[in-house]
Amino acid sequence: MIKMNSKQLRVSLGDDEIKKQLQHNPIYIVLDNVLDTYNIGAIFRLADGVAAEKVILCAGSETPPNSRIKKASINTTEWVNWEYYPTTVEAIKKLRAEVPGIQIVAVEQDIRSVPFQETAYKFPVALVVGHETDGVSQEVLALCDKIVELPMYGINVSLNVMVSLGIVLYKVLDSLN
Amino acid sequence: MIKMNSKQLRVSLGDDEIKKQLQHNPIYIVLDNVLDTYNIGAIFRLADGVAAEKVILCAGSETPPNSRIKKASINTTEWVNWEYYPTTVEAIKKLRAEVPGIQIVAVEQDIRSVPFQETAYKFPVALVVGHETDGVSQEVLALCDKIVELPMYGINVSLNVMVSLGIVLYKVLDSLN
Repeated sequence: MIKMNSKQLRVSLGDDEIKKQLQHNPIYIVLDNVLDTYNIGAIFRLADGVAAEKVILCAGSETPPNSRIKKASINTTEWVNWEYYPTTVEAIKKLRAEVPGIQIVAVEQDIRSVPFQETAYKFPVALVVGHETDGVSQEVLALCDKIVELPMYGINVSLNVMVSLGIVLYKVLDSLN
Repeated sequence: MIKMNSKQLRVSLGDDEIKKQLQHNPIYIVLDNVLDTYNIGAIFRLADGVAAEKVILCAGSETPPNSRIKKASINTTEWVNWEYYPTTVEAIKKLRAEVPGIQIVAVEQDIRSVPFQETAYKFPVALVVGHETDGVSQEVLALCDKIVELPMYGINVSLNVMVSLGIVLYKVLDSLN
């Protein structure tokens, strides 16, 4: 089978066919109580950008259909796979049961964290991001295989959740290729 | 001189002292007509996160003071250095004159672009990002030393400007360290 990139696919196939034929990367994105619908939509856009297998929305995170999520997602909510779980703990347990060998990595500032750029990623991988102020909860961190952190060089202590996730996702993709 | 990270600085100094003592990285961020004030604010936050030397706002980009920019920037507009130029062409010419040897890199999809992760970055460096729909203008691209592009694996063709910029900035920082 010839593997085509999305541009080549677009030329040879219609939109519906593209969606069926798109090869997903073995990457899962878990939202532990991300509350801002603009952030959620932008994470869908990012999930499409890296052809993630699935977005897993948990706890207080809003889900599609939602007009603000859809707009920020640039309509990618129409085809990106997603699920919702009332608790992130439940979502992670389900993920471990359904995806053998999955490496679960939280993106969070924590005493146990390692710099994201010095970390070995294995596939399949799940990246967990958290609430805009409180981050990933302690009980969820305890279930993760690894916690990675972005170096911060300035005065403010953190980056926007979608920006942090994007930076780590493209680093993870480097390991895949 | 002992170089402290921002956390260590925070412990030993007051806020105003931190701002004076913060070591900037030789990174400039040029906004070629980025119009959304939320994006502009988030880019200030990112500029602080990487301790960029300066944000250079051009053409139609709004500037501080602006309440939406300030909010999205998490108040980093209070200390991140910035300038405004009516045209991006003028801004780039000024930058070349004032910062000898600067490498100017556009983040854009273009026939001349190379993958961002396979590129050698030199310092000082300026990253140029553009308008939310139209991207970096052709006349500005013509003045850049290099054009880098993010691989897109999904159906949608692009990422949010702040996310793209964040991904490339942290790759550039890898070259610095």
